[in-house]
Amino acid sequence: MAASSNNQDRQQSRRKFIQQTAIAGAGLALANPLQLFSQNKTPEVMSQNIKAKGYAAKDASGKLSPWEFERRPVGDDDILIDIQYASICHSDIHQLKGHWGPQQYPQVPGHEIVGIVAAVGKNVTKFKIGDRAGVGCMVDSCMECDSCTHGEEHFCDKGQTVFTYGFPTKAEPTGISQGGYSDKIVVRDHFAVHIPEHISFEEAAPLLCAGITTYSPLMRAQFKVGDKVGVAGIGGLGHMAVKIAVSKGAEVYAFTTSPDKVEDIKSWGVKEVIVVDDEFKNMQAYSKTLDYMISTIPYQFNVSPYVACVKPYGTFTFVGMPDGSEITINNLMLAFSRVNFNSSLIGGIPETQEVVHYCADNGIKPEIEVIKAEQVNEAWEKVVNKEARYRYVIDAKTF
Amino acid sequence: MAASSNNQDRQQSRRKFIQQTAIAGAGLALANPLQLFSQNKTPEVMSQNIKAKGYAAKDASGKLSPWEFERRPVGDDDILIDIQYASICHSDIHQLKGHWGPQQYPQVPGHEIVGIVAAVGKNVTKFKIGDRAGVGCMVDSCMECDSCTHGEEHFCDKGQTVFTYGFPTKAEPTGISQGGYSDKIVVRDHFAVHIPEHISFEEAAPLLCAGITTYSPLMRAQFKVGDKVGVAGIGGLGHMAVKIAVSKGAEVYAFTTSPDKVEDIKSWGVKEVIVVDDEFKNMQAYSKTLDYMISTIPYQFNVSPYVACVKPYGTFTFVGMPDGSEITINNLMLAFSRVNFNSSLIGGIPETQEVVHYCADNGIKPEIEVIKAEQVNEAWEKVVNKEARYRYVIDAKTF
Repeated sequence: MAASSNNQDRQQSRRKFIQQTAIAGAGLALANPLQLFSQNKTPEVMSQNIKAKGYAAKDASGKLSPWEFERRPVGDDDILIDIQYASICHSDIHQLKGHWGPQQYPQVPGHEIVGIVAAVGKNVTKFKIGDRAGVGCMVDSCMECDSCTHGEEHFCDKGQTVFTYGFPTKAEPTGISQGGYSDKIVVRDHFAVHIPEHISFEEAAPLLCAGITTYSPLMRAQFKVGDKVGVAGIGGLGHMAVKIAVSKGAEVYAFTTSPDKVEDIKSWGVKEVIVVDDEFKNMQAYSKTLDYMISTIPYQFNVSPYVACVKPYGTFTFVGMPDGSEITINNLMLAFSRVNFNSSLIGGIPETQEVVHYCADNGIKPEIEVIKAEQVNEAWEKVVNKEARYRYVIDAKTF
Repeated sequence: MAASSNNQDRQQSRRKFIQQTAIAGAGLALANPLQLFSQNKTPEVMSQNIKAKGYAAKDASGKLSPWEFERRPVGDDDILIDIQYASICHSDIHQLKGHWGPQQYPQVPGHEIVGIVAAVGKNVTKFKIGDRAGVGCMVDSCMECDSCTHGEEHFCDKGQTVFTYGFPTKAEPTGISQGGYSDKIVVRDHFAVHIPEHISFEEAAPLLCAGITTYSPLMRAQFKVGDKVGVAGIGGLGHMAVKIAVSKGAEVYAFTTSPDKVEDIKSWGVKEVIVVDDEFKNMQAYSKTLDYMISTIPYQFNVSPYVACVKPYGTFTFVGMPDGSEITINNLMLAFSRVNFNSSLIGGIPETQEVVHYCADNGIKPEIEVIKAEQVNEAWEKVVNKEARYRYVIDAKTF
């Protein structure tokens, strides 16, 4: 019963998909030769490496340039995605410039990836050709351990999580996973999520990292409607944290060092925007006022004035990952603040699917600027200089 | 009604006290001239500075030597305590040697203080002359703010907590509070706790800091009977943490770098003792096994291998306060561990009274070695060299 009903659903979805793409004149997807091949189960993509092109860093300068490379064939549990958009995360820059340790090059960054399923392996039931799919920060794991079977694949107990780019893996011809600044990607079906039709591809892309990375700790904080939630650092992640927290009923206090972001931030429904001065003087008024605070600041900073804004026994979550991954805390401040300090990585696949649904269903859209591949180096500079407003999304047609 | 019943109680208690001191032949207390004066409300201790003697550091070498000084007169809300014993906390050493910042000298350390009430101010109802009393890490605060009126006097919202020694205060003739390595102390009644008669003075002393400082976070952790609780660093604080956690039903895992402590620790009812090697190799077997962990290690150390022993979403509490008060954490480790990291200072007065009662009622006794005042410098060296077993208690008669 369940299976046949499932089949029916799928057939309906496929009909709907074909209708919509036809109506929208979005011929791109159907016209793509790879899709036609895979619908016929053409053996090439299943048995041979797949030619892909993208933008890669060739060394630790982190300068990106076009690169043609190969991805693994579509395995029995894999899907092939024709990438439509990939957005730029500060992590891309940190990792490719070697801030978190030495890297193998060429390396294609990108872990906010959306596109259309172009081929599916024989065991795949989660997706069918033509489905809208997204890939975030990881592409594989052991899938058997306690963490993997309970929605925390990023914490695979066997240490077999494969992060989306630069991660050693025998499965890929280049020896490392290669990310989403590219025209296509092969990924194990479990690690892709569905992108509903009521959110655009380009607005969905940033949810795959910026969305889930802020949503996950915000949900874990279990704040109640009306609770005061602080967000420090209003960039790609921070602006999503603000929108999600506002949407979930928090009274949001946004802390930024960019005065010219104030009007934008206010328009997202926050209670207050605090422009942090160099000596943190204007933060003193917020001492012990917040029920919870999340920091998305992606570099080393003085955390004490921020932690001090949280009520005693409240929680402060750090989601940025600074150079060297080391943070120094004044222990006396921490003792006096009585604040629980933790750090959050990303989120698991079920929760990634959840945030995509939540944002689609509730009209929570990232602020984006669509760019061409050739603009990517310039965009990276703007991200570092805090000039992004607030997420650059690369049109994958331009790779 | 309440008042007269109270008076009756007090008279009974006093009768009991007189009987007991008579039976025990503990002539010291009653024979003390100060007590006789104060029982007669002799004005001297109420109106004039009180001569005291003790051991003080004269400079940042931290070397202690005899010192005669004055304490403030007994104010309306104060009590005078004839100190019987004062025990040695690693904090005494840190502070007097200037590890936490420059100090005013001469300074008398000591915040684990027990003795007999020798005089009471006119407003005092909490104590009467002859009562057994203890003083811990603080001696005054605003007593009006939200924190002070809710049992968190150490977190006085007005910043008026006066810690027991070395803290600037106009009330004291020396300009700073002077601690318990001394023959007497004047303290606001609220900041002294009752020492029940079924625990000896010398065994009660360490409860005033080592006891409360570990009891408070252990209770806040709300572990359940059978939960796995780790204790890192088995010195003065650590051995109390072990005993309290065992008594409260935890399965305790004790982590020490001193192999010769193993048999002692086992005798306190722990589940396992782990002798930590330099490379933390034998800690790997405990990865993600503990429901909660408390570290009492009083210096800078690599916290990551310890934090990694806590289950995801568990809590790790740091109660040591290292040089400079700075701790460096690997943020990536913290993210992967999913552990909540916090730091705990001491505990409030109601909870300090609670731990004294709890330990007295449940036979939880610190391991002590009573020493004379002249042995104090040698004892400090042993504390630093991890040779204390496990708390030195100074006999105040020898000051």
